[in-house]
Amino acid sequence: MRMVDLIEKKKNSEALSEAEISFIVEGFTHGTIPDYQMAAWLMAVCFAGMNEDETAWLTHEMAHSGDVLDLSMISGPTVDKHSTGGVGDKTTLIVAPLAAALGMYVAKMSGRGLSHTGGTIDKLESIQAFETERTRDAFMEQVSTHGVAVVGQSEGLAPADKKMYALRDVTGTVASLPLIASSIMSKKIASGARHIVLDVKVGDGAFMNTLDDARALAKAMVEIGAKLGRSVCAVLSDMDQPLGRAIGNALEVRESIDVLRGGGPADLRDLSVYLTAKLVQLVEGGTLDDATKRVSHALATGAALKKFKEMVISQGGVWGDDEIYPEMHAAPVVRTITMSSAGYLSSIPARALGTIAMQLGAGREEKTSSIDHRVGLILFKKAGDEVRVGDEFAEIHAATEEDADRAALQLAVWMKTSSHAFAKRPLILDEINAFG
Amino acid sequence: MRMVDLIEKKKNSEALSEAEISFIVEGFTHGTIPDYQMAAWLMAVCFAGMNEDETAWLTHEMAHSGDVLDLSMISGPTVDKHSTGGVGDKTTLIVAPLAAALGMYVAKMSGRGLSHTGGTIDKLESIQAFETERTRDAFMEQVSTHGVAVVGQSEGLAPADKKMYALRDVTGTVASLPLIASSIMSKKIASGARHIVLDVKVGDGAFMNTLDDARALAKAMVEIGAKLGRSVCAVLSDMDQPLGRAIGNALEVRESIDVLRGGGPADLRDLSVYLTAKLVQLVEGGTLDDATKRVSHALATGAALKKFKEMVISQGGVWGDDEIYPEMHAAPVVRTITMSSAGYLSSIPARALGTIAMQLGAGREEKTSSIDHRVGLILFKKAGDEVRVGDEFAEIHAATEEDADRAALQLAVWMKTSSHAFAKRPLILDEINAFG
Repeated sequence: MRMVDLIEKKKNSEALSEAEISFIVEGFTHGTIPDYQMAAWLMAVCFAGMNEDETAWLTHEMAHSGDVLDLSMISGPTVDKHSTGGVGDKTTLIVAPLAAALGMYVAKMSGRGLSHTGGTIDKLESIQAFETERTRDAFMEQVSTHGVAVVGQSEGLAPADKKMYALRDVTGTVASLPLIASSIMSKKIASGARHIVLDVKVGDGAFMNTLDDARALAKAMVEIGAKLGRSVCAVLSDMDQPLGRAIGNALEVRESIDVLRGGGPADLRDLSVYLTAKLVQLVEGGTLDDATKRVSHALATGAALKKFKEMVISQGGVWGDDEIYPEMHAAPVVRTITMSSAGYLSSIPARALGTIAMQLGAGREEKTSSIDHRVGLILFKKAGDEVRVGDEFAEIHAATEEDADRAALQLAVWMKTSSHAFAKRPLILDEINAFG
Repeated sequence: MRMVDLIEKKKNSEALSEAEISFIVEGFTHGTIPDYQMAAWLMAVCFAGMNEDETAWLTHEMAHSGDVLDLSMISGPTVDKHSTGGVGDKTTLIVAPLAAALGMYVAKMSGRGLSHTGGTIDKLESIQAFETERTRDAFMEQVSTHGVAVVGQSEGLAPADKKMYALRDVTGTVASLPLIASSIMSKKIASGARHIVLDVKVGDGAFMNTLDDARALAKAMVEIGAKLGRSVCAVLSDMDQPLGRAIGNALEVRESIDVLRGGGPADLRDLSVYLTAKLVQLVEGGTLDDATKRVSHALATGAALKKFKEMVISQGGVWGDDEIYPEMHAAPVVRTITMSSAGYLSSIPARALGTIAMQLGAGREEKTSSIDHRVGLILFKKAGDEVRVGDEFAEIHAATEEDADRAALQLAVWMKTSSHAFAKRPLILDEINAFG
């Protein structure tokens, strides 16, 4: 088999066989296929696409290019949850312990944040002494005992995807539906869970800006899962505005704990319950209503909070017996911003607010930037809310007065009101299941 | 400027600016743009295409990436001729001295043969002691004095094209009209002539198999020439069967001299006269009829033959005063093949016959193969000719009896006759001029 022939085949919009896809991924991973041939092939895929079989084979090959987590010794249902990334999206911190409280096993590997979007691992590292790097044995032991562990992605997870993504990033080949879908799913497949719920974010602050694009991505990922023997459901949720109120790592951990205690913002609570209920359905079948009731009960009884606390302590985090929150540093400067006009809030754009939080130090402009876990924003309003002059709009948590000054100026741009009320966009926009 | 942005731009089917094309070619030539980015861009060009301006800018940049021949000290009209490659195509050996005999100046850089197609430089090297590598000064001196010199392409000619072609060859990005057209034309532009006639071969033995494809390539090349200030004409000629009778280096030189002496096969003579007449028209205007008359006259008076002899001797070739041909080795085995059936010859497929000649040693299977200048085929028939049993079909010139045996078996496959006469395909199929 010669790579140049496979490039030509894809260039002529022909479908590749399983053996051909395997040849490409193995050859690229082991360096026998050079970057320039892979780049040409990736660009041909961007134009000519891949069918469902090709996409599934690519995913399988990338997943098996490195370590694959073997969860077969776990006697209960193994589940995973993935978000395509958003602003203020801390649902993993709630869904993971909730699922564990309901008897599911969550061996979760998460990523770090980049640009205006946050990452679960960064959030958990707000907790004093919390360890996100664990040995394989310690990780599996914790999952078996407590039903939940969340660690950083190991270096050995889907190395083909890692190498391919690095090449795509510099060759203009990121934007391709089958390549995006297989990249995400390869890591889920390598992570070993049988049941997977995908939270595909849609809107201004998301990777997918339109509902059509998000639906196509969701469909592609659900199909990959079905072809590779996983039960997968994709939920499309709004990311035109941040999820919940908090943006910033320690702030988001606190807000998640508020939800686990039965409080917190309604949108964050609703989406977390919905995603967990979909996991219950994937594992056990039954109606969404019944699943939702069971999830709400696990929240109300404090069982989910208990799981979260077990996880934090098991991973070395500091949490005093009588404390509401684990030990986390607080920002030295906290400033409240109030409304100077009245009416209905026009929009709370997720991307812009995520960028303001990033510039406060909550996120990374580049992969190598360091972050300040203490800082960020709390937003007291949602788009469409009726406001009066003097109402609290937001709270800035900053490292310095100068940072707070700059953030206040940036926030002012977005405190626009209109005199007419308008319909709010629903939180959950659509849902894609494997079979219809 | 970042290459990744220019790749994205082309991926989105946007046109690039002159500065952007220049950035790409310069960066790639000097190694600041890596192969993998260039490969992605080339594949995007294969799908998204390039407009006429982009193609002309690319050609200009490639032409100026290395040495550009300065013919400005030559006081007469400078001309060039290029064939896209075929079997038995020795027209350069006739057109170049013919043009020189008519007062034009031909500073020609030619290539070597590959696969089933031959190269002018290989043919000339059949002549004992003929030198195809000359210093720049000696080359220019010969052109000034005799009006004609044919040498091998210098290493420094359009190095960007050379590097780009090597990458295209291994990344499935050869088949792209603007890339093919700009590659050919970059070398013509770097060679410095003001007037260029292109012989675009069409058919079984040619790079372009259909008239539509050939027309598109011809149009693209003529447009590039016009945009870069050259007067260019493209003639589309048949390559379903070999041109003339001879295939093989020394055999083709002999046949060319036959034409220069007023004999030789009609198709080779007609096409050579036509191409030279087009050059006369490009330089001086006037009607094709008048131009053809002048060209035929230069052939009839022996002026063209004289120019050819001057060139051979000036470049070191051995040609005795009373000899019809210059000194060349002859093949030790010559075998005549006769027809075993009667009727009308169905076809003389150029590619198959070129391959038989190549396997006799006349051509190169790979770039590094060596060739035997003595061997090849003489074909006594054309497709559509009426033949009788016992008629001479071909003459095999081989290095060994075994080679001749094998070639005889291969040739037998193509000696098919039909009982009905059919219309022969014309030699000249179309013509593309810069302005209509």
